[in-house]
Amino acid sequence: MLPFSRVSIIGLGLIGSSIARAVRAQMPTVALSGYDASPEVRETAKALDLVDDIADSAGAAVTDADLVILCVPVGAIGAVAREIAADLPADAVVSDVGSSKAGIARALSEALPGAIVIPAHPVAGTENSGPEAGFASLFQDRYCILTPADGADAVAVERLSSFWTKLGARVETMDAAHHDLVLAVTSHLPHLIAYTIVGTASDLEAVTQSEVIKYSAGGFRDFTRIAASDPTMWRDVFLANKDAVLEMLQRFSEDLSALQRAIRWDDGDALFDLFTRTRAVRRSIIEQGQDDSRPDFGRSHD
Amino acid sequence: MLPFSRVSIIGLGLIGSSIARAVRAQMPTVALSGYDASPEVRETAKALDLVDDIADSAGAAVTDADLVILCVPVGAIGAVAREIAADLPADAVVSDVGSSKAGIARALSEALPGAIVIPAHPVAGTENSGPEAGFASLFQDRYCILTPADGADAVAVERLSSFWTKLGARVETMDAAHHDLVLAVTSHLPHLIAYTIVGTASDLEAVTQSEVIKYSAGGFRDFTRIAASDPTMWRDVFLANKDAVLEMLQRFSEDLSALQRAIRWDDGDALFDLFTRTRAVRRSIIEQGQDDSRPDFGRSHD
Repeated sequence: MLPFSRVSIIGLGLIGSSIARAVRAQMPTVALSGYDASPEVRETAKALDLVDDIADSAGAAVTDADLVILCVPVGAIGAVAREIAADLPADAVVSDVGSSKAGIARALSEALPGAIVIPAHPVAGTENSGPEAGFASLFQDRYCILTPADGADAVAVERLSSFWTKLGARVETMDAAHHDLVLAVTSHLPHLIAYTIVGTASDLEAVTQSEVIKYSAGGFRDFTRIAASDPTMWRDVFLANKDAVLEMLQRFSEDLSALQRAIRWDDGDALFDLFTRTRAVRRSIIEQGQDDSRPDFGRSHD
Repeated sequence: MLPFSRVSIIGLGLIGSSIARAVRAQMPTVALSGYDASPEVRETAKALDLVDDIADSAGAAVTDADLVILCVPVGAIGAVAREIAADLPADAVVSDVGSSKAGIARALSEALPGAIVIPAHPVAGTENSGPEAGFASLFQDRYCILTPADGADAVAVERLSSFWTKLGARVETMDAAHHDLVLAVTSHLPHLIAYTIVGTASDLEAVTQSEVIKYSAGGFRDFTRIAASDPTMWRDVFLANKDAVLEMLQRFSEDLSALQRAIRWDDGDALFDLFTRTRAVRRSIIEQGQDDSRPDFGRSHD
């Protein structure tokens, strides 16, 4: 049995368009409607035949839905929720895909009082953006975290969990505040650091931009992938999850200072100990199917 | 015409064994000898038939060579050079593959006075180590930087350049001090940051190790690849290139503090501006063939 039969996707970028493709692939009888604030994206979505019906407004896209997923930048969630409020069916489940959850839960419950809101976060993505960047297998074997509020509708949680499982994801449930702390370290801090080092490398006087690019295979290029992620999305994430990000950043800075000191004072043992410990983490990530075991992420060498 | 006909490789890990395989593939008539300080590695190299002759000492491996490449951790270069000094043919070219060059040049010229020394650095590698991790196409389209001293034998530079070109590399020549500055930003700083963040994430109390691993696809996993690199090699690199690494680290820390401040004070424009700028760097890296254009480095999504 299908958990939902009429799904509405608001925001047809990488994640929204991937959900549409995955629904088409895994639950082909589901009726899909969609909307995007950008006329160009709506045109592209039509040309790609991403959903059955592209509406002319967010409200028109949800009138008939039993699941509405808001796939917009975190900072735009409240405004989009207000746009659909008048047209939202009372029994529809409203969810999202945002990378910070406590603030989103607040914004949704304020904009949609009385609605059945179950926030969610599929921990998946690529550095590419837009409706053409999506693909049906994006969520395969990735985790999707649901953060229902205390006392949330258990049946709705179960249906949303079943929906994401059918798209290939492994579903977990946790408290929104804990989600925000976990993602601060597994996603937000890495992005912040990647953006920073790419900026640092771009601003040097003694080393040219051309040299940075030519010799990037020494390690730098690994950072450029996530530093190519969508600027609007990430600006919103850092502002929305400020406290947890600043806490993780503080810890990282302390650890970096300790390594800096070890280098300055020729403490090779301290360096060696850390470098040995970090190998085990990657091994676990590969064992648990969260990364490619081939060297260099499986990049081509020919 | 072949630039060298009898090549000796001292150190048969990832890089040494990749050179051996690439020579076999591209210059099959070259006589290859090799040595590794580890008896286990020598046994594995024999079993893999990496070279024609595995010697019982570093000296015995070079007696007949016209090119000797030292593929050992930077901190071991001086000792290995002293081991081969008595057996080194006077007309042999001595080179290396180390990731820092000014210190290596000093160590080699002290240990081998009068020898023809042309230091080199193929900017290529993977997170894996050991003789089984190597492969013939590792250097394909990657840069190899030669750092000959002022007044170095021009014919030797030309022959070594031709050797690396035949292995598939793009050869550049620069001053050792400039090399060390360039690599500090394109390779050493990225490794240091990757090791640090993986350590930071491992040490949290509020977020479990298991959560870090499960949700690593949010960005963290990208850092774990280079944080799984060889601990001995990297300890040596940071100590050998201390000044340039500390300089780059200082700049990175300043830039990170500026972003931290932007987050704390809700300066979304500053974040957006940086995040927009960094996208262009990745585009250039891909255009110049130094990374995979497929999303997620071409990782499998199925």
